Amino acid sequence: MKLLTFLSDFGVKSGYVSQMKGVALSLTDAKIVDISHEITPHNISEGAFVLMTSIPYFPVGTVHVAVVDPGVGTQRKGIVIATRTQILVGPDNGLLIPAARRLGNFTVYEIVNPELTLCNVSNTFHGRDIFTPIAAHILNGFLFDQIGPVIKDFIDLDFGSFEIGNKSAIGRVIYIDRFGNIITNIDGSALKQVLSFDKKILLALGKKKFEMPFVKSYNFVKPGKILATIGSSNYLEIALNKGDAAKKLDVKADSKIKILFD
Amino acid sequence: MKLLTFLSDFGVKSGYVSQMKGVALSLTDAKIVDISHEITPHNISEGAFVLMTSIPYFPVGTVHVAVVDPGVGTQRKGIVIATRTQILVGPDNGLLIPAARRLGNFTVYEIVNPELTLCNVSNTFHGRDIFTPIAAHILNGFLFDQIGPVIKDFIDLDFGSFEIGNKSAIGRVIYIDRFGNIITNIDGSALKQVLSFDKKILLALGKKKFEMPFVKSYNFVKPGKILATIGSSNYLEIALNKGDAAKKLDVKADSKIKILFD
Amino acid sequence: MKLLTFLSDFGVKSGYVSQMKGVALSLTDAKIVDISHEITPHNISEGAFVLMTSIPYFPVGTVHVAVVDPGVGTQRKGIVIATRTQILVGPDNGLLIPAARRLGNFTVYEIVNPELTLCNVSNTFHGRDIFTPIAAHILNGFLFDQIGPVIKDFIDLDFGSFEIGNKSAIGRVIYIDRFGNIITNIDGSALKQVLSFDKKILLALGKKKFEMPFVKSYNFVKPGKILATIGSSNYLEIALNKGDAAKKLDVKADSKIKILFD
Repeated sequence: MKLLTFLSDFGVKSGYVSQMKGVALSLTDAKIVDISHEITPHNISEGAFVLMTSIPYFPVGTVHVAVVDPGVGTQRKGIVIATRTQILVGPDNGLLIPAARRLGNFTVYEIVNPELTLCNVSNTFHGRDIFTPIAAHILNGFLFDQIGPVIKDFIDLDFGSFEIGNKSAIGRVIYIDRFGNIITNIDGSALKQVLSFDKKILLALGKKKFEMPFVKSYNFVKPGKILATIGSSNYLEIALNKGDAAKKLDVKADSKIKILFD
Repeated sequence: MKLLTFLSDFGVKSGYVSQMKGVALSLTDAKIVDISHEITPHNISEGAFVLMTSIPYFPVGTVHVAVVDPGVGTQRKGIVIATRTQILVGPDNGLLIPAARRLGNFTVYEIVNPELTLCNVSNTFHGRDIFTPIAAHILNGFLFDQIGPVIKDFIDLDFGSFEIGNKSAIGRVIYIDRFGNIITNIDGSALKQVLSFDKKILLALGKKKFEMPFVKSYNFVKPGKILATIGSSNYLEIALNKGDAAKKLDVKADSKIKILFD
Repeated sequence: MKLLTFLSDFGVKSGYVSQMKGVALSLTDAKIVDISHEITPHNISEGAFVLMTSIPYFPVGTVHVAVVDPGVGTQRKGIVIATRTQILVGPDNGLLIPAARRLGNFTVYEIVNPELTLCNVSNTFHGRDIFTPIAAHILNGFLFDQIGPVIKDFIDLDFGSFEIGNKSAIGRVIYIDRFGNIITNIDGSALKQVLSFDKKILLALGKKKFEMPFVKSYNFVKPGKILATIGSSNYLEIALNKGDAAKKLDVKADSKIKILFD
C-alpha cells in the first residue's frame, strides 16, 4: 500500500490542500492522510513538533509532504529526507529535521531535478508544484540519487534541552494543544525515573508558582483542577481536568518551565 | 471494501487524529472517513448526536471509532458494540449508545484482550493505543468473542423524551449546527401527523414567544426570517433563512423548547 | 482510479459531510478528496472561486460534488456539468459555472431522473440525497443522457471584468485566503506583459493609497511589509510578508481595486 501524508499551515478553508492532493492523485494512486493543516501560519517550530510526534505511528514506506514555508520563492532549498523507514519532503528550514531525527539516522537530498516537478512552477506554492510531485514520484519508485545531491548543511531545528535533577526539572513549553494542555520538552520516561505518580510537584512559571499532583491521567484530579502527567507523546504535560490549562495559567509556547519535587 | 470512520473531540490542529490513522493503516488497508473531530471538548452528548445521525448513511460492515473520552486512564471500560449492520468502538461513557440503538438490536463487548492493543498503551490516548487497533483487527476478521465478555451494565445515554399533542409539542434542543440551526429531539415524522406545512406555530423559549411558519425548507421564508422545518436528520428544527437562529434567539443546546399550533 | 471530491459550506463540526461520504461509499469505491467545507455559509461566489481554482489540478475523470445551496428545497434545479475532462454535480445557482468554464467547453444537464437519488429525499439536504448518489452513479458508468435534458438557461456567475492598461489595472477582490492574502480578479499573465517584477506600484483602495513593490514572492520584502505578487492561481495578489494584508489594509471580498505603475 502506498501512503502519502500532508502537513501544512494552509488551513482547510482555501482549496490549497486539495490542489496538492489533486496533483498527487494525477501521478499516483496512494492513500492520503492529513496530519494537520491548521499549523499556525509560518510557525515552523509548531509544524515540526506536530510532524515529529505523529509520524512514528505511520507504516514503513510512508512519504510525508510538509509545508510551512515562509521562505517560498526565495533561495531556500527544497529537500527530501530518507530515514530508515519513512521519507520526508519539504522546505529546508528545519521543519522536517526533528521528525527525521526521531526515526534514527537520515540522509538529506537537495531537490534539483526539474523533471520531477510540475511544468509551471509558481513562485508562491512549492508544496503543490514541487514537493507533492516529488513525493508522488518517490512513491512510484523513483530513486533518491536522481533527486539531487546529498547535503550536510541543511537548516537544523530542535526543541531545546531539558534538565532533570533529583528534586527539579527544567525545560520549556513546546506546544499547546486544542484542549489547552501544555506540552513541555521534558522527556516523560526520564522524569518517571526520579518522580513517581501521585507525588505533589510545584510548577514555577516566571515568578508564579502552582502546586499540583503528578498523576497517571487527567481524570485523577477533580474537574477544574490542574495536574501534571506524561502525555501521549511521552512528554511532561501540564493540564486542567476538563478545562484549558494554558488559558488558566496564561502560558504560551516557548515559555520556560521549572518543576520542583521531593 | 473495508471502511473505518473516526469521530473525536481532538480538533484537526494537533496531530492526534493522524496518529490514529497511522496506527490503523499500519494494521489494515481500510478506507478512512472522518465523521467529525470538532466535537466540543468532553461533550459526550454532542458526540453521541453527531455519531447517531451520521452512521445510518454508511454501508454494512463499516467500523466506527469514536473518542470523546474525558475519563481516559481511569477505570472506565472500553467497549465494542456489534449491531446488525455496523460496528462501534470507543469508551463506555454513553457516546456510542444512541448510534447503536438507531441501528436496531446490539450487543456490547468489554475490551479486555491485551493482545489487540498497541504494545505501549499510554494513559491519556486510548483512541490511538486501544480503540483504533481493535477496530483494525475487527476489519481484518477478528472475532467479537475474543475481544472480551458481553456486558449488560454499560453506561447508557439518550436525548430525553419529547411529547407531541394535538396543539403542542414539548422537547429539548439537542444540537446547534454550524449554520445556527436549532435541532430538537422532537421526531419529524410524528410531528407531521398533527401539523401540516405552511401553518403558523408559536415557539416558547422560557418566557419568550416567537411566531413563525412551519415550512418545507429554509428558503420558504424571506432571508432573515425565522422558521420551523423538519431537518435532514428527521427532527424538528428552528432556523433563520440565510442566518443564525441560535444566535438570534439566544438558544443553547439542552434548552427546553415548546411549540404551540392549531 | 475513481476519484470523487466534495466542496460545501457545511463545516467540519457537524456530521453532514460524513453523511455524503457514507452515501457515496455505499454506492462506489471511489477515492474521496475534500476541496473545502469551510466556505462561508451561503457564499456561492466564494465557493465558486475555490472550486474553479482547485479543480484544474485533478485528474481526468474526477467527479466533483459542490454544495453551497441556500435555495435547497425550492424550485432551483439540480445540474450535472460534463466538461471535456471532469464532471461537476450540484445546484443550479452559479456555483459550478466558473469551474466548468475554466476547463473549456461544457454541457449542462438538469437532474430529473428520480431513480438516481436516495429513496427518501429530504427537503433540506440535497447534497446527501441527490447530488452524491448522482455523482456515484456517474463514477460507476451511468450515462449523462439518462440524468435529464440538456439545458441552456442555467444560472451563470463570473468574477467580473478587469482592465489592464499601460499605467494601471482595475479589478476587484474575489477572495481573501487564510493568510489574509488579497486575491483579485486581475489576470497575472496579462499583467506581467506590462509590469515587470521589482517595480513599485501604487494601490488605490477607495480614497486610500498604498505604495508597494511588485515582487516574485512574499519573502522579497521585509516581514511586516506589503507587496503585490502573482499568486498560485495566477491572479494579482496583495499580501503582507508574514502577516495579514486584508486585516492591515481593511479590505473585504468584492471591494474594487486599482493599481497604478509606470
